[in-house]
This record gives sequence, structure tokens and C-alpha cells, in this order.
Amino acid sequence: MNDEPVLLRTALAGFDQLWSPRIVTRVNDYDVRIAKVSGEHIWHVHENTDEFFMVLNGELSIALRDGDGDGDAGTGRGERVVTLQRGAVFVVPRGVEHRPSSVGGASILMFEPTGTPTVGDRHDPVPDHVNATIGHLLG
Amino acid sequence: MNDEPVLLRTALAGFDQLWSPRIVTRVNDYDVRIAKVSGEHIWHVHENTDEFFMVLNGELSIALRDGDGDGDAGTGRGERVVTLQRGAVFVVPRGVEHRPSSVGGASILMFEPTGTPTVGDRHDPVPDHVNATIGHLLG
Repeated sequence: MNDEPVLLRTALAGFDQLWSPRIVTRVNDYDVRIAKVSGEHIWHVHENTDEFFMVLNGELSIALRDGDGDGDAGTGRGERVVTLQRGAVFVVPRGVEHRPSSVGGASILMFEPTGTPTVGDRHDPVPDHVNATIGHLLG
Repeated sequence: MNDEPVLLRTALAGFDQLWSPRIVTRVNDYDVRIAKVSGEHIWHVHENTDEFFMVLNGELSIALRDGDGDGDAGTGRGERVVTLQRGAVFVVPRGVEHRPSSVGGASILMFEPTGTPTVGDRHDPVPDHVNATIGHLLG
């Protein structure tokens, strides 16, 4: 896709839209996407794929309904929140409802199969500030 | 694999061996690996997979025999070198012979299918300072 290295800070400087990932490069049938985020995304789930997050700048929280953290595993709906500082990585397993958010804003990198929609396979209503997309090519 | 975020600088602080990747987490059937590198790796090729590199610290060079850059595309053996600064990403396409190196040392993150050997499917003789592995679990 790119036959030269891409400096992520240069790629990030090329767009401002929030919650609207750009595809930086591809690895086999996976996308490497970057996004700027602030405020709340929506609850959604990817039924058939894990989703990798890495924080490049700022801090990202991900609310998870994975039944952990409250003794509520029987329902599988117990909520918890993980917080990723700059330089932290986390994988949301397939089938786990999640809602990313960032109070102070963040830049993130994601790995996921090409074609994975940002709002998953099932999701809450999509507000105007969230872009339902399978990623945009870097402009 | 991990149900809590992993801070990459903490993970990097946990080992010293060069050219010996640690598996930080998995995304479907892919590994996210980190490695400390210095000096030269070996010429090798992954016939069936692309390989993603991101530089976390330092600077990484990757020599490539992809027939670009010297008008030598007919042989497909023309060599060039790409240099990745901190925060740069690059994908070595499947089938392209490559040799990573770092004069001053670097920490890198890689994304590739679980089971991918560090020395590829075809490679030069493996010197003592290079670990031929499919990655180690974080200690």
C-alpha cells in the first residue's frame, strides 16, 4: 500500500475529524488504522473479530461488558472500564460489547480485519459525532 | 490473552535480549510482538505474510530487495534501505527479502500471524546474536 515509511504524527496532522479512522497501511487482510477521538463513542460489538487498540497520545478509556469485575459473570453484562495511557495496548475480544471514550482527547492506532465497521455488527444509535465507516484512506 | 491494558514501556523494561521478540497480546490469529534491537539482523523472507513494523524508540533501518530505487526491477533484487524514525510504521510485503538493522538501537512493535518465525522461511545463516523464534511470551 505504502512503499515508504509513514510517520504517524504526520499522518495524524492530515485530518481533524473525530471518531473517523484513517487506514495508514495494510498487513495481509488487516488494516492499520489511526483515529483522533474525544468524548464518547457508542456501545457496539464485533461478533467475529478481536480489535487492537494502542494509545499514541492522550488517554483512552474502554467500557466493557465482559462480566468481569463485579461478580456478575453469570449474565455476561457486568460492566468495567479499562484505561489506556499513552503507550498502552489492549485487545477487545470478539463478542464483547464495548464503548471507547476519552475525556481529554486521544490519538489511537488500531489493527483489525479490513472491512471491519467502526460501529460493529450491533450497536446503539449512531450520533452525528461518530462516523460509521470501514475506515478512510489517508488523504 | 491479557484482560488488562499493557503499558509497552513496562513490558520493554522486563527483558534485555536483543532480536528476540516478546508477544504482548494477540488479535485473532495474529501476534503483537515487541523487540529490542541493535546492530544487524539477517537477510530473510516471509513467503506467505506481510510484516508490520512500528518504531517505539530509536531508529530502525530495513534493507529491502524489492527491485525499487535503482532501475533494477527486472531482477527484483535491487536493494534499497528505508529508515523508520520513532513513531514511523512500515510494512514489508510478503516475498520481499529484508534485513532490519539499527545502528543506535531501537525498540519496535510488530504485527504478524502467530507462528511467524523471526528468521522467515528462507534466510542467511543465523548468528548467535539473533534469536530464531516464533516469539516468547512476556515473562
